[in-house]
Amino acid sequence: MPHLDRPQQLLQKTQNLIGDALEAVEATYAAELASRNSYIRDIYQHTNRFRGKRLRPVLCLLAAKACGNITREHEILAAVIEMIHTATLVHDDVLDNADVRRHVATVNVRWNNQTSVLYGDFLFTHAFHLASQTGSAEACRLIGHATNRVCEGELTQIRNRGNLSLTEAEYLDIIDGKTAELCAVACYLGAKFAGAEESEIGRLERYGRKLGQAFQIADDVLDLTGAENAVGKTLGTDLMQRKLTLPIIRLLNREGDSHRIRMIELLEAGDEKACLEISKLSRESGMIDDSLQFAHQLAEEARAEIAGIAESPARELLLQLPELSINRAC
Amino acid sequence: MPHLDRPQQLLQKTQNLIGDALEAVEATYAAELASRNSYIRDIYQHTNRFRGKRLRPVLCLLAAKACGNITREHEILAAVIEMIHTATLVHDDVLDNADVRRHVATVNVRWNNQTSVLYGDFLFTHAFHLASQTGSAEACRLIGHATNRVCEGELTQIRNRGNLSLTEAEYLDIIDGKTAELCAVACYLGAKFAGAEESEIGRLERYGRKLGQAFQIADDVLDLTGAENAVGKTLGTDLMQRKLTLPIIRLLNREGDSHRIRMIELLEAGDEKACLEISKLSRESGMIDDSLQFAHQLAEEARAEIAGIAESPARELLLQLPELSINRAC
Repeated sequence: MPHLDRPQQLLQKTQNLIGDALEAVEATYAAELASRNSYIRDIYQHTNRFRGKRLRPVLCLLAAKACGNITREHEILAAVIEMIHTATLVHDDVLDNADVRRHVATVNVRWNNQTSVLYGDFLFTHAFHLASQTGSAEACRLIGHATNRVCEGELTQIRNRGNLSLTEAEYLDIIDGKTAELCAVACYLGAKFAGAEESEIGRLERYGRKLGQAFQIADDVLDLTGAENAVGKTLGTDLMQRKLTLPIIRLLNREGDSHRIRMIELLEAGDEKACLEISKLSRESGMIDDSLQFAHQLAEEARAEIAGIAESPARELLLQLPELSINRAC
Repeated sequence: MPHLDRPQQLLQKTQNLIGDALEAVEATYAAELASRNSYIRDIYQHTNRFRGKRLRPVLCLLAAKACGNITREHEILAAVIEMIHTATLVHDDVLDNADVRRHVATVNVRWNNQTSVLYGDFLFTHAFHLASQTGSAEACRLIGHATNRVCEGELTQIRNRGNLSLTEAEYLDIIDGKTAELCAVACYLGAKFAGAEESEIGRLERYGRKLGQAFQIADDVLDLTGAENAVGKTLGTDLMQRKLTLPIIRLLNREGDSHRIRMIELLEAGDEKACLEISKLSRESGMIDDSLQFAHQLAEEARAEIAGIAESPARELLLQLPELSINRAC
């Protein structure tokens, strides 16, 4: 376990190191989405209110800084990845019928599902348009490939709603696509466009992937255990949507566990009351702790990937990010 | 008016001229979407059944052939544009709650809305991934820009549902985005990657744009007048979704017309019975003929744009396509 700053300290150090570049990313993001259409401007401003801590741009820029210098290409690509991430959030809220994200009404609630679908498309296509501004077809290809995997992960997740036989390997494959891939490509592009060697680019990519997996597992646990007000988005949506996550999958695989039969009954009932009891049962059976322990193990593996790269302030921050991601799913 | 072959003859001539390239486009399209995931393969095969006459790939390849030779880049870009078009169809069917497209159940009906949203995203992101295979960031930029306009057109259309004050200029701006832009960029890329001069590229682009506008107006008229069985998709959806199209907008602008007040009453009622009467009223007031005449005028303008380029079999086919598009909205 590395030395861990308090979140506020870590934020300040990140700000000191890459604050200017993060501002340039924001400006690039805003400029790309500027529209002559007041309706689109309204949606843009609204969705900005539920964007998070810019984890993916931070990963891209810190990876760049850890391997060399931040360039204009990094600023563009960090904005591209953030835009793709926002597009998936907007579409996720339609899929989940979610009402609230980061204490703000979702687009589907504030406007309607149609607007959400089209605004998500608008973000996706602007992201690809922006990627081309790097002048690098290779960057476009990498962004395209990563986004393909994101969609494939989400499709597989939808397909497996209500599938009580979902295996842990299948679950990990889903989160690898829907979450880890974008973190991995953020780090990959950060290193690549800083002129890093292949082996170093590979390390950063694997670091981003493990971090993303750890983050998603923690986020899924939070959905099961958290209180709505603390997190700012509708919780328990996974259960209501019959998405199985790690604590539940692990319990279902414990042949001899006395909680197992009860869990199956509750999952089959699937109403609000059952959801509360599933949450309680996940904790009592030890599966919440067990899943979080697995997330910490992935965080450790992420850190190990970059242990070999040259020491730098950027590397120090990267070493702390996996734990931070778990402690508060960003 | 040019010499017009019968549709079957025109199809045969097109097949003779660019059949091999069209096959390569299909193979490229299929290879890009190949998935290890059987669920995605099922959706892919299903959506292939409602793809249309490949108007956009044909435009791209004929534009190339009219300006020079068809290259590998053309085959890729034609597949890209077709993929983006298919993505918009899949999302349109969610937006419209449509049940049937080309006599086949829509994805939202065969699976569900969530699958439609994600499969549309899957198609969009694969299209951009495929575009990068040209190795040209400029091609990615042009595709990205065109797709941005498609989304903006669709968003503006949704925004104006039920807006009885929608002007003809606003309507034309919407169809320019949602339909004409993709036809324009198909022709633009066809000419550009065949090494045409700027002025010729501009001519082809304007040709594609006018053709797209003419086509969309005809398609909107068809939605108002056609019989469900003849067209293979749910009709009258524009009215049920309170989308105003050209015949209605023109009638609403006729201050002295005796049909006008009745039309406003019917639009405000908006039920199935009212839709039938709106259709009847559009014809009786002469607005259907009036709108189709405007479409024919745009077709004429499209032809005029390419009158100056060198004679060739490809140009002869391009000269016929605008009328064909009107006669049977592809």
